[in-house]
Formats: sequence, structure tokens, C-alpha cells
Amino acid sequence: MSESTAFRAVDLIRKKRDGAELSAAEIKYFVRGSTTGEIPDYQAAAWLMAALIRGLTRAETAALTDAMLRSGEVLDFSDLSAKKVDKHSTGGVGDKTSLVLAPVIAAGGLVVPMISGRGLGHTGGTLDKLESIPGFNVNLPVSEFRRVLEKCGCSMIGQTAQIAPADRKFYALRDVTGTVESPYLICASIMSKKLSEGIDGLVLDVKTGSGAFMKKEEDAVFLASLMAETGQRMGKSVVALITDMNQPLGRMAGNSVEVIECVEVLRGEGPKDLRELCLQLCAWMFVLGERTTSVEEGKELAAKLIASGEALEKFREMVGLQGGDVGAIEDVTRLPKAKHKKDVVSSRDGYVGAVNCEAVGTACVVLGGGREKKEDAIDHAVGLEIHKRIGDRVAIGEPICTMFYNSEDKAAQAQALIENSYHLSETSAIQPTLIHRVINNSGETN
Amino acid sequence: MSESTAFRAVDLIRKKRDGAELSAAEIKYFVRGSTTGEIPDYQAAAWLMAALIRGLTRAETAALTDAMLRSGEVLDFSDLSAKKVDKHSTGGVGDKTSLVLAPVIAAGGLVVPMISGRGLGHTGGTLDKLESIPGFNVNLPVSEFRRVLEKCGCSMIGQTAQIAPADRKFYALRDVTGTVESPYLICASIMSKKLSEGIDGLVLDVKTGSGAFMKKEEDAVFLASLMAETGQRMGKSVVALITDMNQPLGRMAGNSVEVIECVEVLRGEGPKDLRELCLQLCAWMFVLGERTTSVEEGKELAAKLIASGEALEKFREMVGLQGGDVGAIEDVTRLPKAKHKKDVVSSRDGYVGAVNCEAVGTACVVLGGGREKKEDAIDHAVGLEIHKRIGDRVAIGEPICTMFYNSEDKAAQAQALIENSYHLSETSAIQPTLIHRVINNSGETN
Repeated sequence: MSESTAFRAVDLIRKKRDGAELSAAEIKYFVRGSTTGEIPDYQAAAWLMAALIRGLTRAETAALTDAMLRSGEVLDFSDLSAKKVDKHSTGGVGDKTSLVLAPVIAAGGLVVPMISGRGLGHTGGTLDKLESIPGFNVNLPVSEFRRVLEKCGCSMIGQTAQIAPADRKFYALRDVTGTVESPYLICASIMSKKLSEGIDGLVLDVKTGSGAFMKKEEDAVFLASLMAETGQRMGKSVVALITDMNQPLGRMAGNSVEVIECVEVLRGEGPKDLRELCLQLCAWMFVLGERTTSVEEGKELAAKLIASGEALEKFREMVGLQGGDVGAIEDVTRLPKAKHKKDVVSSRDGYVGAVNCEAVGTACVVLGGGREKKEDAIDHAVGLEIHKRIGDRVAIGEPICTMFYNSEDKAAQAQALIENSYHLSETSAIQPTLIHRVINNSGETN
Repeated sequence: MSESTAFRAVDLIRKKRDGAELSAAEIKYFVRGSTTGEIPDYQAAAWLMAALIRGLTRAETAALTDAMLRSGEVLDFSDLSAKKVDKHSTGGVGDKTSLVLAPVIAAGGLVVPMISGRGLGHTGGTLDKLESIPGFNVNLPVSEFRRVLEKCGCSMIGQTAQIAPADRKFYALRDVTGTVESPYLICASIMSKKLSEGIDGLVLDVKTGSGAFMKKEEDAVFLASLMAETGQRMGKSVVALITDMNQPLGRMAGNSVEVIECVEVLRGEGPKDLRELCLQLCAWMFVLGERTTSVEEGKELAAKLIASGEALEKFREMVGLQGGDVGAIEDVTRLPKAKHKKDVVSSRDGYVGAVNCEAVGTACVVLGGGREKKEDAIDHAVGLEIHKRIGDRVAIGEPICTMFYNSEDKAAQAQALIENSYHLSETSAIQPTLIHRVINNSGETN
């Protein structure tokens, strides 16, 4: 009996349905069959629903990740002598750290082979941000990706058809069968894609709060532990930072406006929260890549690489190598710019108590900065500049936020969303902690 | 917005996934969309799995049954003045009562528009048994079904393409997606088909024990209550008998051998257990059809119709009207007969303590009396005659069972199954009660 006929799909569905644990061989069979189409979509859908409701064990999650990873090409950069590290964020509003991290880490001598995604729901996507730089090509073939990495140590591209096809298959199916929300399936999806980059270490930025997919911290911690343990089982160094997404990260949300803000950080400027999170994430990447022995040392190194201009130079180099307009990094007025701008002002005095950060992200999507449907085109020029953060004092008539827009209709919709997102209180609220906790490789929290 | 676009399938899947209750309109939308193919199989499969794991409420079960029923043609025999009643059994080994009940009830003046099924797994099917009568046509169009009912008061056919197409669709999908075992889905499947017959009352024979699909009595009781309550919600008189399937019913298991045994019962002969169950089921059908006011009276009427020969005459009439060889009812040697027979004998002295009745049914399938795959042809001639029942004394070398067969290979396999199915004990075991309990229309047990 050949391996591909050793199991029956219906038996594997029944097993998971009844809450039993599947073996690695059974999961491999299921993933392979689903990807090739030998196992029809209706069987894959039934299994995914059973997996969502019954959950997966840690061993099953690792086996699923491994099988999805091996469904396609696993990049091999072992000929590059430096350690390869990457970062993945579960997504948020104004979450733009990748554009800072990649050049800083490459300037520090490690390699960052970063395969990123597009905006999803109310959150932005690295690829969309990069594409606001005129000429920047995120669709490099693997050979070109390698060439850029060899030359400058970092490259940022989109997923290729060869990488983790099982994930593309499952993701499309999950989207229409109500099986997106399973932490086990989310873990396997993220980790299979990221580990196919051929990296040694991965830093996870798991967002929690009103602008994150995981609104509750316990859910973020659970997913983070799952991903960290899955990484460990697959022999990779993984650390997860649970970070705050109760308000936009930094001041800017959009595409070209976020690129501008990243350039500011790379110049040693930019908002404090964004700069601090970038330094922390860089520090952990340096630790996992064995470039520094401590997080403190890693943070110092990152700050030094920014202060010296080496990181910004590395970013310029990468932009050039990927066909982007390097001049636009010097002179950001060459980046797409919206025709109009308008302040959203406060209707009363008080302190910002809470922000519905998902609604702020949605306002940005409404302006055209994200997609309401998959097919929609992005308007790279539009966006938001946030003036008030949780705990800040606001006077009546004072701007909470500035909208950059190209359509009055859309601006009116976005304004309503923003006005409803800011909840003022009589007394000053406490600023949320930026980094809630760190979860290491063995799934324990520090 | 038209009714068919009022919902999104993915939202209904998510709702059931999270254990919430769907409205009747939502269920109707889902059933209709799944049947027409507007809702693809992978979405239907995900919903079915969520429904199996989360369960359905009584209102959802009734709404599902109703929507499946209305997915096709609902027969209307309201022009026939007599009450229309039917019986459905959840399936067992040697479970042949339909062939007795239909003519008895018709002889009593009620109408029995019986739509039956084929053998499933280790259990036999009414259509397969009827087809062992040379010429008997179970594939009548509805117009012909009506003609036979008008003439003789009973007719037995297979499901037509027009009746409950949603059930055919779901059943095929459930079979390959591990979603067969849900009592809610079983209930909707059975009740949608049976109530599409346009009947006034339905007697359910819910089997429990080692030869039933529901091995545990509590599961049988649950399904029975569910079906009784669903019937009530749909305005039908329904009663469920929980009956014993810890050993084959009667002496015969197979196809032509079961027809012969039914003819014996219709002649006032036949084994005691089969005769008793037939009288009980007939009695309840007479009560639901308002032909008698009590079960006792119904039982007496059934016995009288058998003793007078009227029931056998009715059977002959139906066989003739459906193209069958009436002479074969007189002279059963005209029915298919196996070439060989062989006794399976006891290897020691003792009492029959327990029977693995499913294995006995499987032995019958192995001989060719049932299908291992859907496409397999039935050998109507083969079967088993059971000589020993639970509690019976058995001497070493004494026959437990006689096999009627056409293939030595298959007989050897069947013999091994049978030898392993009979568990002897030192002391006499108690005969199982034939009728465990009766569950009435409001779901209460008597």
C-alpha cells in the first residue's frame, strides 16, 4: 500500500471530530491530499471545523505546521554565513515596525529574508506600505530575493506561489467556512510561512487590545505560547512579545505616511512608542541571531546603528535593489500625497480614556488605505495622523487626528468612525504599557 | 434584497460553530442553497460538522426537517379517505417487519404509502428483500404508486428523485465527512423522508443493542424522543417503540429467506418474537390511524386479519400490482435459493449469553446478502437461519446457525464471524425484553 493510500480522509475527520489526537503521518496525509485536491474541499472543510471546535494538541499543531511548510519550497540560505532572523506581527493599526527592523538588523550583520503580507481587515500590510515607494517591487522571484539578501542583508517580498501552498489552500477555505479564528490553525498558518524562509530565529509581535485580532490578552498569550512551542518543536529559536494595540502604534496610519514615519525613526526621530517597540524587537532579533548576548546589548546596538545612519543607509540600499525610488527616501514629498487634509476635533474637554482602535483602522480603510474587498485597489496617499493618545488631555475644538484624503464622501464616513472611537473621561487615564510580556521558546511567560 | 440573498452562508456556519440557535429562515436558506448548489459543498460540510458537534435545538431540528421535506415533492393522498400511516425502523439484522405490517394495516382499511431504503452497513433493507420476489418493481413513479395504493391500500417503493432531494444531498455529504452519527441530522433525514409521504401518523421502531446503530439504549431513547417531538412540532402523530436488537429478529437474515419468514407470519406461523413485534407495531399503527382506540384492540385486529388470511391476500395483491410473481408467495421454492448450506456448530456446551449481532449481520453481508460498497450487487438467495437465541442451551456439536451460500470462500469468512459472535456462558442468561419502552408524541417515555 502506497503512503498516499494508507489512510482514509473520513476516518481522520471522525478522529478529530471525536477529540482524538492525529499522528504526524495522518496530518501529513491530510495536508498533502487537501493541497493536491485528492482530498476534496468538503472533507478538508469538515476537518477544519472539527479542528477548530475540538482544538489540536501541541504535537498536532507542530505536525500541521511542518506538513504545511513542506507542502512547498523551503528556502535555504545556509550558504549565507550570517544568522537569518525575522519578525512576524499578528497585525494592528499603524503597525509599521518591519520597515525599521529589517534595515537595522541587516546593518547589524544578520540576514532578514522577510516574506510579508498585505492589509487584512482593519489592519495594514507591509507590502502595501512598501508599494507606496514609487517603483518598489515586492514580487521578486526567489533568485532575485537571494541576490538582494546577498548584497544588502535584507529583502522584503510577498509570498510566492511556491511557498506553503497548503496554507494558501487552507486559508481560502477557512475564510469561507468560519474556521479562521482557531489559534491552532492561525499558528500553523503563520509558522509554516515564516519557517519556510529558512530562518534560524523568529520574533513574534503578538498584538492585543482594541485594535488587534486578539482583543483579550489571554487569547494573545495562548497564541503566542502555541507559536513559541511550535517553533521549539521545529528546532527554531522563537520569542513572542505581547504588545499593546489599544491605540494606533506611532502617529501615522496609512501607507506613504507610515513610510515617512519609518524614515523618521531610522533618522533617530519619530514617535517614542514606535521607536521603543522597534528597539525592543530589534534587540530580540539580535539575541536570537546570536549577534548580542542580551536584550539590553541588542537595544544599544540597534540605537547605535540608527544614530550612525547605517540603518537608514541599509534601507536606501534595499529600496534601490528592489527597484524603488531612492530619492523618495531623502525627499519624502516624492511619495504619494493626498489632495486634502482635515482635522477631526474634540467636541468637549477631557482626557482620552479609551480608543476603539479597530474603528480607527477601519476609518483608514474607508479612506482607501485598505481593502474592503480583496479586489480593491489601495490609495497609498491617504491616511491618518493621530494627535492624541490614551491619557492625553484634550480641549474642546482641539484636533484629535488629521485625515489625509482624496474623497469628501469617504472622509465624512471616516470622520464619523473616528469621532465615535475616542472616549473621553473626566480624569487622566493610565497610558497602557507598550510591552505586556515576553514569552520564550518553551512557552513560559517571563 | 431577495430572500435567497438575505443571509451569508459563512455567518450561519459561524453561528452554529459558536453554539447559537439558527432561525427557521436561516435554516431554510441553508438547506435550499446547499440543495441547489448555490452554497458549495465545503460550506455545507463545515455546517454539518458544527451541527454534529454543537447539536441542534428542538426548534432547529424541526426547522431542518421541514426545510428538507419541502426541498422536494410532498405527496398528497388527501383524496384517499382512509388515514395514511407508516412505520420506520432505524435498522437491524433480520428486521423484516415492514413486509408484514403493510398488508396487515391495508387489510384493516388504512393506507400505507411506504417509501423504503436499501441495506446499509450490516443491516438489511426492505427494497432488497422485496426484489428477491421475481419481477417485483420498487421503482414505481408516483402516479403508479398512487394507483397501487388506491387499489390495495399499500405499496412499497424506493425513494424517488423528487422526494427530499436535500436529504440525498446531505446524506451523500455526511457519509464522506464524518457527520453521519448526529441524532439531530439522523432525525431530520428520517423524518423529512417519511413525512413527505403525506402520512397522518408514523410509528418508529428504534432499535437498540449489539445489532443496532444505536448500541446504547440512552442513545436510542434520545433519538426516539427527538423524532417524536419533531413529528409533534410538524403536526403529525408519532410514537416510537424502543425495541431489542441484541440478536437477530426472527430466525432468518438475508433476502429471499426473510420474505419466506414474512409469508409464514402472514400465515399465522413464524417465530414468536417476529410475530409479537409485528402485532405490536400494527397495533400502534391502527391507533395512530384511529382505526382502533387502544393498542390491545389494535393487536387483536392485527391477529384477526392474519388468522383470516386477509393480510396474506393483501400481500399477494400488492406483489401482483407491483409486477411480482404472485405464485412465488404460494410456492416459496420459486424464490432465489442458494446452492449450498452448511451448519455452524457449537464448539462446547453452555448457554447463549450474548450475541455480537452486528457481526452476524456482517456475516450475512459477507455471504453476498448486503453490499460492502454501494455499487455491489446483492445475492438475494444467500442468508442465515439462526437456531439459537440468547438464553438457549447449546450442546457441543449442535448447530447455532445454518448458512445458505453460493461461494465456499465467503462461507468460510462468514462462519468465522458467526463463531466469534456467540458467547456461551455456564448458566442460562435472561432473554432480552423485546420492547424496551414506548415514547409518545410529546417526547415522554411510558
